[in-house]
Amino acid sequence: MTISMYQASVPVFLNMLKGLSLVLSKGEAYAAEKGTDPQALIDARLAPDMFPLARQVQIATDHAKGASSRLAGREVPKFEDTERTFAELQARIGKTTELLGTFRSEDMDGSDERTIVIPMRTGERSFTGMTYLLHFAMPNFYFHVTTAYDILRHNGVPLGKTDFFGVR
Amino acid sequence: MTISMYQASVPVFLNMLKGLSLVLSKGEAYAAEKGTDPQALIDARLAPDMFPLARQVQIATDHAKGASSRLAGREVPKFEDTERTFAELQARIGKTTELLGTFRSEDMDGSDERTIVIPMRTGERSFTGMTYLLHFAMPNFYFHVTTAYDILRHNGVPLGKTDFFGVR
Repeated sequence: MTISMYQASVPVFLNMLKGLSLVLSKGEAYAAEKGTDPQALIDARLAPDMFPLARQVQIATDHAKGASSRLAGREVPKFEDTERTFAELQARIGKTTELLGTFRSEDMDGSDERTIVIPMRTGERSFTGMTYLLHFAMPNFYFHVTTAYDILRHNGVPLGKTDFFGVR
Repeated sequence: MTISMYQASVPVFLNMLKGLSLVLSKGEAYAAEKGTDPQALIDARLAPDMFPLARQVQIATDHAKGASSRLAGREVPKFEDTERTFAELQARIGKTTELLGTFRSEDMDGSDERTIVIPMRTGERSFTGMTYLLHFAMPNFYFHVTTAYDILRHNGVPLGKTDFFGVR
């Protein structure tokens, strides 16, 4: 037995998005409790030239929907990047989770060896499905999920590793 | 074709540790260029109750050596957590990379279904090899690699996604 492309992607995205949703709920609750503007957290960044919280969530969900759709040979659905509130970010995670629920393991069979072409700022880049998943989509996904957590943690939100893992 | 336990672990750890090493080199170079004490970066945290940079690197390498050793059925080598300088952190990444180079794909065959028991603060936790790798070791590894990057980025070190991926 080895790992299927489905096992290495969809359940991992689902678990970590559950964590991201919990982390955002705790951010929203913290702002409410302190009586501060929730927008201050939505717009918070770790550096002036890094993306703010809302964009981190958008990009994390983009990698989850992009990887799962491409590996299943489906068109990647387009989400407009208009989320400006905690409720809207939760809705985006919800839409992504719903999409992930539509994939079956067999949809991704054989995708490890298929060529996946990704549009990048620097032009197109082509990968095998396995390299795309393990060495591009997954590290990018984790980067943005972790940075969202780090932004909130840096702004005082009481979070721990169990929140990152979505353990309520 | 599917993904072997080796493919899902060792080459991913190696690539991301190459990135972590590059990110640390750029942190060290930045301190030298600004004439600031490199120790300020080694001790930097994103929140008072988060781990400083040095500890993030120690934990990231612990997950890489722990996962690869356990999946291969080997004893996990113990590293003392004594690193206090950029050179010492690079040496720790070097030792981990060297260890990762000693595993062969067949060492991990069948580890997806084997029971892996992990000592935790809250007691022992047991996983199948696949769940341990995909839902415990890998998210933890990425969390600490990303947080090391975020700490340096937050402290002004000029880093980009290509550094995270170790592309020189």
